[in-house]
Amino acid sequence: MRRAYLTGFTGSAGTAVVTKDKAALWTDGRYFLQAEKELTHEWTLMRSGNHGVPTTSEWLNDVLPSGCRVGIDPFLFSFDAAEELKDSISNKNHELVLVRGMNLVDEIWGDARPEPPKEPTRVHDIKYAGIDVPSKLSFIRSHLTENGCDAVVISMLDEVAWLLNMRGSDVPHSPVFYSYLIVEVSTATLFVDSNKVSEDVLEHLEKAGVKLKPYEAIVSEVERLAEKGAKLWLDSSSVNAAIITAFKSSCDKHMKKKGKAGEKVEKEAYSDEPTGVENGALNAVYNVSPVTLAKSVKNEAEIEGMKNSHLRDAAALAEFWCWLEDEVCKSVPLTEVQVAEKLLEFRKKQDGFIETSFDTISGYGANGAVIHYRPTPEDCSSVGSDNLFLLDSGAQYIDGTTDITRTVHFGEPSPRQKECFTRVLQGHIALDQAVFPERTPGFVLDVLARSSLWKIGLDYRHGTGHGVGAALNVHEGPQSISYRYGNLTALQKGMIVSNEPGYYEDNSFGIRIENLLLIKELNLANSFGGISYLGFERLTFVPIQSKLIDVSLLSPSEINWVNDYHEEVWDKVSPLLSGDTRDWLWKNTRPILDVTHRYSHAQDIA
Amino acid sequence: MRRAYLTGFTGSAGTAVVTKDKAALWTDGRYFLQAEKELTHEWTLMRSGNHGVPTTSEWLNDVLPSGCRVGIDPFLFSFDAAEELKDSISNKNHELVLVRGMNLVDEIWGDARPEPPKEPTRVHDIKYAGIDVPSKLSFIRSHLTENGCDAVVISMLDEVAWLLNMRGSDVPHSPVFYSYLIVEVSTATLFVDSNKVSEDVLEHLEKAGVKLKPYEAIVSEVERLAEKGAKLWLDSSSVNAAIITAFKSSCDKHMKKKGKAGEKVEKEAYSDEPTGVENGALNAVYNVSPVTLAKSVKNEAEIEGMKNSHLRDAAALAEFWCWLEDEVCKSVPLTEVQVAEKLLEFRKKQDGFIETSFDTISGYGANGAVIHYRPTPEDCSSVGSDNLFLLDSGAQYIDGTTDITRTVHFGEPSPRQKECFTRVLQGHIALDQAVFPERTPGFVLDVLARSSLWKIGLDYRHGTGHGVGAALNVHEGPQSISYRYGNLTALQKGMIVSNEPGYYEDNSFGIRIENLLLIKELNLANSFGGISYLGFERLTFVPIQSKLIDVSLLSPSEINWVNDYHEEVWDKVSPLLSGDTRDWLWKNTRPILDVTHRYSHAQDIA
Repeated sequence: MRRAYLTGFTGSAGTAVVTKDKAALWTDGRYFLQAEKELTHEWTLMRSGNHGVPTTSEWLNDVLPSGCRVGIDPFLFSFDAAEELKDSISNKNHELVLVRGMNLVDEIWGDARPEPPKEPTRVHDIKYAGIDVPSKLSFIRSHLTENGCDAVVISMLDEVAWLLNMRGSDVPHSPVFYSYLIVEVSTATLFVDSNKVSEDVLEHLEKAGVKLKPYEAIVSEVERLAEKGAKLWLDSSSVNAAIITAFKSSCDKHMKKKGKAGEKVEKEAYSDEPTGVENGALNAVYNVSPVTLAKSVKNEAEIEGMKNSHLRDAAALAEFWCWLEDEVCKSVPLTEVQVAEKLLEFRKKQDGFIETSFDTISGYGANGAVIHYRPTPEDCSSVGSDNLFLLDSGAQYIDGTTDITRTVHFGEPSPRQKECFTRVLQGHIALDQAVFPERTPGFVLDVLARSSLWKIGLDYRHGTGHGVGAALNVHEGPQSISYRYGNLTALQKGMIVSNEPGYYEDNSFGIRIENLLLIKELNLANSFGGISYLGFERLTFVPIQSKLIDVSLLSPSEINWVNDYHEEVWDKVSPLLSGDTRDWLWKNTRPILDVTHRYSHAQDIA
Repeated sequence: MRRAYLTGFTGSAGTAVVTKDKAALWTDGRYFLQAEKELTHEWTLMRSGNHGVPTTSEWLNDVLPSGCRVGIDPFLFSFDAAEELKDSISNKNHELVLVRGMNLVDEIWGDARPEPPKEPTRVHDIKYAGIDVPSKLSFIRSHLTENGCDAVVISMLDEVAWLLNMRGSDVPHSPVFYSYLIVEVSTATLFVDSNKVSEDVLEHLEKAGVKLKPYEAIVSEVERLAEKGAKLWLDSSSVNAAIITAFKSSCDKHMKKKGKAGEKVEKEAYSDEPTGVENGALNAVYNVSPVTLAKSVKNEAEIEGMKNSHLRDAAALAEFWCWLEDEVCKSVPLTEVQVAEKLLEFRKKQDGFIETSFDTISGYGANGAVIHYRPTPEDCSSVGSDNLFLLDSGAQYIDGTTDITRTVHFGEPSPRQKECFTRVLQGHIALDQAVFPERTPGFVLDVLARSSLWKIGLDYRHGTGHGVGAALNVHEGPQSISYRYGNLTALQKGMIVSNEPGYYEDNSFGIRIENLLLIKELNLANSFGGISYLGFERLTFVPIQSKLIDVSLLSPSEINWVNDYHEEVWDKVSPLLSGDTRDWLWKNTRPILDVTHRYSHAQDIA
């Protein structure tokens, strides 16, 4: 919001940099057009990722005379990000200054600046959370002790929400609340605006031995821990620079008082690193948060909630698709935004619905080829029957989080569209059906989703799968399924991932087929190497449009997959439907080809 | 040979370490039994890879009192390997000493030590080499200039042979000769025993401007280059420690003479690194040899030679398999070694045959499950009709190098064997049929060869593909197809790789199906991203035993693959055969199922 206030650019991603005589805004390909419209001439638009466009630090090194001071708000940068910026601008002898106690944008904004969100928090019922807070805390504490740590600072909002079985609504689409959490070996403190905490939430926290402190008290508390000589577990990729540098500098002061430090004069400047790092090394373990993996491996109650919420979501989607097909066939004019709004109405009728889990991507024709397309009421297409319609949407329910993409055609798809759709479907099936040994990182499986497209020289420029939270963020780590082979996190039993290959023909159409999958251990006839073999269980049950499938491209096992999936969709979702929608589901889950018949005959020939 | 002389252990891989009161030999799983037999009680056998077995440096750190001196022959360690050893033993303050001018084993061996091989070298005909030596040298020289280097030291024997279009026979199975090569911007020098160089080879070298120097002169020549102030390109992963340290220390002396060095006293010890490294950094570029990639990407003549030699090899194999099937059916007793010898006889009859390209792996029944099994006449099985027989073999021809594995059963395979064989075949087909964008590293494709086995909880503990030289080493880099994701080398047009998935049931049977594949650019209907898409062309044409295939597990496209492959085998190889062998080939290349018929009927049903 500060960036939008300062620059006029309202896109969701970007970085604004202001020098004494220049102002530049970096954003990515999704927002080039929007930024061109919204930025005034005082701003230079930096098209990130385009050839020859410098990074923010390259630009700073270029436009500033050597030896300048560059300020950031240290609460808005992770420690690692600040370090990286510091290192890269040090090439031109610039100094990174952490501007504490004020934010320059807020100074200008003044009283007109909106208040921070003050939405109430709520208890996430144990029947959905599965594990109570004391058990989760003692799990974290056992990790602390194993690593010789006295406390951990948790600043990822979904990790705080997961660990405390709490939810909030400070952030659109994500049921989290602004907070920090410090877990010590015998206590735990939640840093949050107490106005957000009702009586029953307070009781819930007290029962688990969690105390409250004001949100702003986090830094002083970390300094107090440093003074006590506590050893902290810090995930420097997520904990902000303000907290970690405050801890380091406080350790430093403490050491000096105890006469252990060297002769270096104490400074507030960030570049005073040698001492800080030294003490940091003694008093902190820099490691990925102990909550990250625990949160991504779902327990039975979380899995149950995910399954149930997916069925209700499927019912809403069946009603929606039945309605939309009817409207489009009657040539009722409907924009992409109106369609998304109607989908929201259907979802709102489902028990436990809270909100959408991300901005709905409702893209007709060429708009479907814009991977992160977000239609706006002023400037969006109508949904017709001449081209493909891609709809990627999801919801937050009390018991789970959904994320589904379907691509349909309400008229006659071209052979090209059918071929591309079928290739995407083959990739979707190949990943869905994959079996793999434990300890396999997600990137190993990515090729399964791409190889059918590769065979005709096609591909897509995004990953194939992301982690999904249980009644939490729709994107969560640490696992992923991607062609980028940097993420070595093994796929583990209980994790949830999306399966979403696609194909995008610029200025023409977009295709994506997305289900969510639960990773489960398989009971196979063999287990070579004495290890577990894992596979997927589908959570999403919405028909895949048969009209778009070129059956002649499919193998019998792929045809069986489609038939079996549709049979499963019918069995699970039809009991939740009535009337027209039930009829629609029946029609849309008929077998695409009777493979059994074909097979038995082939055997006769053989 | 020195290791065998010293220890009595005759396996092909191992490391012997001797202290004042202890002697230990490290070898891997292939040789545990053999080493147990061959080592006397004075030697401790270290089973590398077994849990709790220390590495050589861990052992040295354990058994030696702190601060010892550990000697190695620096001609027998790459610089990188010596550095690694030096670093790890420095933990206990041991010093690594490069023992120059003598080898301790040779000192004991004395006059009884055999002479080094003195086999003659020969010119590798331009019709097989494709590119003449001056062109290859100027390619290397352009790389030198681009990198600001004056010379490159090439010590990989296959790189010297490739660059100079020469072949030799100093090393069993590999047509290389002991040598070093230094390419400078205007000259090139081959360091080789001049007795190995006949008149016509000499003429060949002279025409290309390549001078001869004695093999032993390599170190003094490198020192001379250092004195001249030349900047060297050194591949420290392959160039030995003797050469690189000689260069560094010579640079050091030279700098001092010119008054540029510090006050450090000159030392011969290897630990005198700081100065050396500094000058090394100034006077050398440490990078993978410029020959490595050039050699692995085959030119048209090399590809032609590979194709031709593979057809002759296929003819020999058809004769062999026809003969063996007949003998086994007549219950003629034949050992694994006798079978391998007979195969050699058939190959010897082919034009341009030189030798086998590796020790034939001829494994019947449980022996087939030993991945690097090498039968010995004294101790090997008979080949019968009660179990699977795995035969992995290859040949060096004047125009190419082959490597093929087939697994057969001369009686009735069990359903289990058929299931496993069919799963291996499905992996083989999936990799064979893969299409992938340029810049794809081999490990991305590895999963394609494994996923059919994973589906039933099976796997194999070796990589899926290695590079193969053209009339050169049967194993060459830099590319590979493996589950280990460390090798980021992209698969490139013109490279050759093996496709050899397998399955090994301990104490029971082994299965491997191996063809060689040429990577080629495909001309597809699309090229998303404006890049090339690559695929494979088969080089190996020997039937895959239909009896072992469970057709009910195959998809129509897999059935088509088998039928098409066998049709191609018949078309290409039958013209080279006559009589019984031709009949055998006909019988063994019949379609396994008429899929066209099946498919057309299925379409009718649809």
